[in-house]
Amino acid sequence: MWHQTEIRLAARSRGFHLITDEVVAGVAALGECEIGLLHLQLLHTSASLTLNENADPDVRHDMDAFIRRLVPGDLPYFRHTLEGPDDMPAHVAASLFGTQLTLAVRGGRLATGTWQGIWLGEHRDHGGPRRLIATLNGA
Amino acid sequence: MWHQTEIRLAARSRGFHLITDEVVAGVAALGECEIGLLHLQLLHTSASLTLNENADPDVRHDMDAFIRRLVPGDLPYFRHTLEGPDDMPAHVAASLFGTQLTLAVRGGRLATGTWQGIWLGEHRDHGGPRRLIATLNGA
Amino acid sequence: MWHQTEIRLAARSRGFHLITDEVVAGVAALGECEIGLLHLQLLHTSASLTLNENADPDVRHDMDAFIRRLVPGDLPYFRHTLEGPDDMPAHVAASLFGTQLTLAVRGGRLATGTWQGIWLGEHRDHGGPRRLIATLNGA
Repeated sequence: MWHQTEIRLAARSRGFHLITDEVVAGVAALGECEIGLLHLQLLHTSASLTLNENADPDVRHDMDAFIRRLVPGDLPYFRHTLEGPDDMPAHVAASLFGTQLTLAVRGGRLATGTWQGIWLGEHRDHGGPRRLIATLNGA
Repeated sequence: MWHQTEIRLAARSRGFHLITDEVVAGVAALGECEIGLLHLQLLHTSASLTLNENADPDVRHDMDAFIRRLVPGDLPYFRHTLEGPDDMPAHVAASLFGTQLTLAVRGGRLATGTWQGIWLGEHRDHGGPRRLIATLNGA
Repeated sequence: MWHQTEIRLAARSRGFHLITDEVVAGVAALGECEIGLLHLQLLHTSASLTLNENADPDVRHDMDAFIRRLVPGDLPYFRHTLEGPDDMPAHVAASLFGTQLTLAVRGGRLATGTWQGIWLGEHRDHGGPRRLIATLNGA
């Protein structure tokens, strides 16, 4: 079975956000998939997808605090500055965390660990709504 | 063909470890797959999976030395500190390196390059055994 | 349908390079795939693959400028130095950006966003030609 759908994520503030429920709700065929893989791909280059802790929101805060300091907006050698000081750091974060993710599916559900959730990394100050393509392949 | 299995990795010390042989041994159906993909997903948020050099162990040492300095445990803005100073750095490393990996399969074997091996990044001081889901899809 | 092919990328200078057209040209069966996934895996441990902006070349410049400063070649704790000061930084960059990528396919084309392109990260001074395995799976 192959299913492909586009999911629209509402605009979010800069930082990391748990989107597992939105993704699962957006992939209607997930429940019929006994064994398979769900591939998620953001259609953007200044946001990211990653798997990390689904419990304490401080983990999401700290991840964002870390990446903001790792890639500040005022690096003197940055040339791509026309779109604002948050843009080039967002491109770097998108490539460090990645913009696509493949997840195991088992028994009609994501086979994630107890503490794993899907995070959207919004790396722009005003990134707006984000779109992703979800592709489900399985048996 | 679809095969899915869970592989249990023995507890390891903090650092990077070559696990190619353990993964291959854990995926019994690999030899029957002429062309396909093997997906690996850790069920944890403080360890990582990455492809890198399978020869000189110094590469694994240096990678760990680098990430320990990049994300030290005593960053003053970290809030998620209750689980110890190695925990939040482990979450960051897990997202920077990633916790899932998809590998090409050809002729019943991983189609990795001569120098490529699968690494487990153990980012906790005492992470304990780690579990991963291996999903093989192919023809 | 399953198709697997090896693509040879010409030698490039250190930095990030847009390779979308080369990849698409190298996967002849892409046009016949209505819905599917294209998996790309470099066979090297000192170069990387990532999705990022396909327009302004300054984004590629800035990404490289950033990673060169993040992982310089003269870190005193690096032990893997025999292959030159650009080698260990290249291994680190390969794992931070990743060496494999899975891309959604829709209607015979990559389902990438308007601004997304496939980048090769060449992290060595003289990396030479690079090989990748492209695996297309779809319906």
